[in-house]
Amino acid sequence: MKPSPRMNATITRYLPILSWGKAYNRATLSNDLVAAVIVTIMLIPQSLAYALLAGLPPEAGLYASIAPIILYTIFGTSRALAVGPVAVVSLMTAAALSNIVEQGTMGYAVAALSLAALSGMILLAMGLFRLGFIANFLSHPVIAGFITASGIIIAASQLKHILGIEAHGHNLLDLLSSLFEHLPETNVITATIGIIATAFLFWVRKGLKPLLQTIGLNAGLTSVLVKAGPVAVVVVTTLSVWMFGLADQGVKIVGDVPQSLPPLTLPSFSPMLLGQLLLPAFLISIIGFVESISVAQTLAAKKRQRIDPDQELIGLGAANIGAAFTGGFPLTGGFSRSVVNFDAGAETPAAGAFTAIGLAIAALALTPLIFFLPKATLAATIIVAVLSLVDFSILKRAWNYSKADFAAVLATILLTLIMGVEVGVSAGVGLSILLHLYKTSRPHIAEVGLIAGTEHFRNINRHDVQTHPEIVTLRVDESLYFANARYLEDQVQDRVAGDQQVRHVILQCSAVNEIDLSALESLETINQRLLEMGVYLHLSEVKGPVMDRLREQHFLHELGGSVHLSQFEAVERITRNLK
Amino acid sequence: MKPSPRMNATITRYLPILSWGKAYNRATLSNDLVAAVIVTIMLIPQSLAYALLAGLPPEAGLYASIAPIILYTIFGTSRALAVGPVAVVSLMTAAALSNIVEQGTMGYAVAALSLAALSGMILLAMGLFRLGFIANFLSHPVIAGFITASGIIIAASQLKHILGIEAHGHNLLDLLSSLFEHLPETNVITATIGIIATAFLFWVRKGLKPLLQTIGLNAGLTSVLVKAGPVAVVVVTTLSVWMFGLADQGVKIVGDVPQSLPPLTLPSFSPMLLGQLLLPAFLISIIGFVESISVAQTLAAKKRQRIDPDQELIGLGAANIGAAFTGGFPLTGGFSRSVVNFDAGAETPAAGAFTAIGLAIAALALTPLIFFLPKATLAATIIVAVLSLVDFSILKRAWNYSKADFAAVLATILLTLIMGVEVGVSAGVGLSILLHLYKTSRPHIAEVGLIAGTEHFRNINRHDVQTHPEIVTLRVDESLYFANARYLEDQVQDRVAGDQQVRHVILQCSAVNEIDLSALESLETINQRLLEMGVYLHLSEVKGPVMDRLREQHFLHELGGSVHLSQFEAVERITRNLK
Repeated sequence: MKPSPRMNATITRYLPILSWGKAYNRATLSNDLVAAVIVTIMLIPQSLAYALLAGLPPEAGLYASIAPIILYTIFGTSRALAVGPVAVVSLMTAAALSNIVEQGTMGYAVAALSLAALSGMILLAMGLFRLGFIANFLSHPVIAGFITASGIIIAASQLKHILGIEAHGHNLLDLLSSLFEHLPETNVITATIGIIATAFLFWVRKGLKPLLQTIGLNAGLTSVLVKAGPVAVVVVTTLSVWMFGLADQGVKIVGDVPQSLPPLTLPSFSPMLLGQLLLPAFLISIIGFVESISVAQTLAAKKRQRIDPDQELIGLGAANIGAAFTGGFPLTGGFSRSVVNFDAGAETPAAGAFTAIGLAIAALALTPLIFFLPKATLAATIIVAVLSLVDFSILKRAWNYSKADFAAVLATILLTLIMGVEVGVSAGVGLSILLHLYKTSRPHIAEVGLIAGTEHFRNINRHDVQTHPEIVTLRVDESLYFANARYLEDQVQDRVAGDQQVRHVILQCSAVNEIDLSALESLETINQRLLEMGVYLHLSEVKGPVMDRLREQHFLHELGGSVHLSQFEAVERITRNLK
Repeated sequence: MKPSPRMNATITRYLPILSWGKAYNRATLSNDLVAAVIVTIMLIPQSLAYALLAGLPPEAGLYASIAPIILYTIFGTSRALAVGPVAVVSLMTAAALSNIVEQGTMGYAVAALSLAALSGMILLAMGLFRLGFIANFLSHPVIAGFITASGIIIAASQLKHILGIEAHGHNLLDLLSSLFEHLPETNVITATIGIIATAFLFWVRKGLKPLLQTIGLNAGLTSVLVKAGPVAVVVVTTLSVWMFGLADQGVKIVGDVPQSLPPLTLPSFSPMLLGQLLLPAFLISIIGFVESISVAQTLAAKKRQRIDPDQELIGLGAANIGAAFTGGFPLTGGFSRSVVNFDAGAETPAAGAFTAIGLAIAALALTPLIFFLPKATLAATIIVAVLSLVDFSILKRAWNYSKADFAAVLATILLTLIMGVEVGVSAGVGLSILLHLYKTSRPHIAEVGLIAGTEHFRNINRHDVQTHPEIVTLRVDESLYFANARYLEDQVQDRVAGDQQVRHVILQCSAVNEIDLSALESLETINQRLLEMGVYLHLSEVKGPVMDRLREQHFLHELGGSVHLSQFEAVERITRNLK
């Protein structure tokens, strides 16, 4: 039996690999391979570091980048997105798990698998049921504020590794007070390594690039050298610890990492655990999806390619479920790794698959080489990476543009810092929704009049316009729905009750995109009340789709006045009848 | 020292009695007195019945109508609103208290005082901080559904009194199963009284009025006789019980009611109790306010008077606080009593004060007369009153007009019936907000073209229009804000990525009432991505206030294309440049 064309389309939709796989050739292959090598080198220290940030053994970072990348290759729609552990999601993972199990225990690693599985299932369900729009309720300012505050918390959480001390907490206050308490226990050698590594990496970012450009190196090589900074630091500090025996001086090292391919693991599906992880998993899914899709869209636009957000949810869902069964933890499409992948010339998701192979080789063969890698070095790479995320300019921008956006971003930043990531992001989302509802519940309603010699009507308070004492025209600058329906009733009654001359009220509906049932009933009420005062209600400039729905309603039969195509016509006709 | 005019205005705003009090004269007095007598007679059985519904001793219903009416007279703005116990609020009171304390105990009555105090403080605070808009989030269909479902629950809750059995529960399932279980214990005499009383009251409503009209009675007298129905039933059934000694046959009667003015009482302010009552008090305040304000506005419109919603909150708040300190329970402005008051000719809130005096006399002198009043009679008056609230037509109406409204009203009815009043109304509000956000998160975006020979642009799928292969115009029929910002990004990218000919994208913003910061950043992203594809983004018909805010932003400098006053001009100019 041959599959029908429609079935083929369905299969291709859910398996994007079939569409780009057909056009795969030697040139694409070589481009993808080069990109894969570069990304692999960059990913090794990054993966280890983010595992550390998530509170997991370093190898978990490698495992989280192997099977998931392959799954994303099959199901994802972005040609250049590189999935794996990222800073913010790793922090959220640590924050979620630490509330439930103690870090460093077996239960902690299993809970991380469960979190990845749950997060993967949520993403998958959102993709299959096309619920990706939920992510849209994270407004840009809230995300910007959240990422900035998270960056600060992440950096603060890594200071303990830089200083070689213990410290705990998942918000800024707890972290700082814990750090301060343990400050006297600082290991001087660790601190020296940590501070030099951090300073060097900052210099690589800020100072090396201009330097290399000054001496005339081409842009491509400059970029590769800058990206290689973390690898250099890893190599130098590892060698130093090994040669000078610094591990015996109290410098904490990565130590034994199993030489193995990702293990097959089974997440716990205990209902209690899943219940506790549900909210964090949901937040991680949403934040991860938003981060990933914005990177994917940006890169796709550069090549005029399409991203299907619902299919992206399926791809990320599959990747997270893959992580859950191969010793990983929650992950998403990362900004820096994807950009490197794209810049290095990756043309298809196959580049990701090659990266996975590279990381698998690393996991199998290279782990003994990082035995002496100091944790302070990994912390330094994290700090430098996340501080580039910290950007308070959003506060200024929001303040200048809209006080509601400013309130939402400020609340997000403060609450994330003080109460932690989950409270912070939830409060930000909740507040932006409430402020939006508040704004639309008190719409701008302008009384308008005719600009002499034209057919245009403008606000009587802003323009010199002609009005008629018996006719009041109100223009509502918002869709009418339950939250502002009664406000309109009040406004109309207020205007008319105080002015005994009024005989006609016209509602100019040019900005009304919708009238819901509450608003329809409010209009009926307004009409009824006006009739009892001997005043006629008219509508003008009602939009097509709004009119389509009104047409079948009693309201139009009961309307005291009429519906007029244009505001000008409305006033013309009413004035003619008045005479 | 003389008060300044501004201080005078403030005092008059918060004490409306000062404005209508000045014009008070003999004619007004006589009208108010007549109305007060009629309302008092109607209120006596109604107050007793609603106290019973709230799970309180009958005298609480009288007390709840005395001090509160006087306080509303001083602080309220409606000339005709009559405050006191109403059916839905009494049901909500019973539902809230039964979860916390056992009915019939001293603690129950004290908790009712606390609920009234808390509800009063919430109303007062909403009035002082002008938060009345919160009530607008109760959409009309949700209220209609809630009232209908509440009416059914109230009627079901009264069946036990009609049958003379025990039954408990605050949702339909619990009530019916409890009734069914106790059915064999039915007291035949009670049931006879209850069923005859109910049937008689229904007949008075449906059959008596046409009959009286047929025999040529004038409308005023007809109306009075119909309204006197409950009083007649009270008199006849009380006398029957007394004369035939039915109380000894198991007919439950009202019994001893203290002969007293409202007592001074002190609500409990235990933090635990207040914590438990906070949500119910909030819901009771909102529902009560919505019911009250819509009656007040309707009656005010008939005489072209103004109602100040914020001051109404203060008036209702004061009334509830008054109830808390004088042995009452939560109350609000009632529909039927206010309409009777208005129809009877009440001209000022003084009519309310006279009603309060009438009820005080009743509480002092008449309570021995209701010793033999059967509870079944009170239950019959409640059933007949609330069944007039039950109206499923809202379901049909919502279904025809808008599926989102239908979903909200259906959820409200079902959840109120199954889970009780608090869950029902909260779910209705939550669902209507979610559906509204969902709708606006996927706005209608139409691709438009020019109607030949005009300057009008219309949907290319609906009209025969001219387009240009290199120019795409999208009209967004919604304000742009965070929930739909990314949707717009996706839509634009989708449209352009698939069509290599496109060189210009115009967003026609005639329906965009607002652009928030997220949407601005999405526009920047869209512009950036289009530039990378070699496509220019233009805006047309941006509204004045939106443009005012955009003007100071970088976006306009970075815009690939231009901002055009009209869509026609935009296409004209771009086409000219293309040639």
